[in-house]
Amino acid sequence: MSPPPSLPTPPYYAVIFSSQESGDTRGYREMAKKMSELAAEQPGYLGAEAIRDSRGYGITVSYWQDEAAIRAWKGMAAHLLAQKLGKTRWYRHYTLRVARVERAYRGPEPDEDG
Amino acid sequence: MSPPPSLPTPPYYAVIFSSQESGDTRGYREMAKKMSELAAEQPGYLGAEAIRDSRGYGITVSYWQDEAAIRAWKGMAAHLLAQKLGKTRWYRHYTLRVARVERAYRGPEPDEDG
Repeated sequence: MSPPPSLPTPPYYAVIFSSQESGDTRGYREMAKKMSELAAEQPGYLGAEAIRDSRGYGITVSYWQDEAAIRAWKGMAAHLLAQKLGKTRWYRHYTLRVARVERAYRGPEPDEDG
Repeated sequence: MSPPPSLPTPPYYAVIFSSQESGDTRGYREMAKKMSELAAEQPGYLGAEAIRDSRGYGITVSYWQDEAAIRAWKGMAAHLLAQKLGKTRWYRHYTLRVARVERAYRGPEPDEDG
């Protein structure tokens, strides 16, 4: 997944999800791809960036218009199964944070102020 | 860098930094390590998680007590050189977002609500 090409002016919301895969990743890649595609279709979805390294440690940050959009996505039936499998099978541990983006900058722009 | 072992109850702040390395990464690893260590010594620093993949794409999220702590770290003399080299040499592009963390969850905890 690439960085989103453009995002609106803050405020908007970020879901910061960091996770360590367990030893059992059966079905994980397919589900991650499917959920990524499904998220992108949701109202209020703004973009996402994701990395997982060779040790199975990953960070995904998805961006949303508001908290209502995040809650709707969290409660979607198709997403609930993925969440359940994540908790019971795929992740050794994870942390999820919901944050309100207040300022955003892009670079390189040598004289920018952040 | 591993996920921080514990963090205070929200609210606190996150700096979400995503970047694509340029072809010129001379001195980058050493500086990244040094800055990571220096950040950890700053007042208001709570923790960080970072990943860079084999294509040179990275996400670092650092956590801070408040915006004043972020601004102080941004303005530190030893950090300014690193920022300048990042902009002029190491990064093809980057995005930096400052966000206020409002809710946080850990898992696996099958019955948790997020």
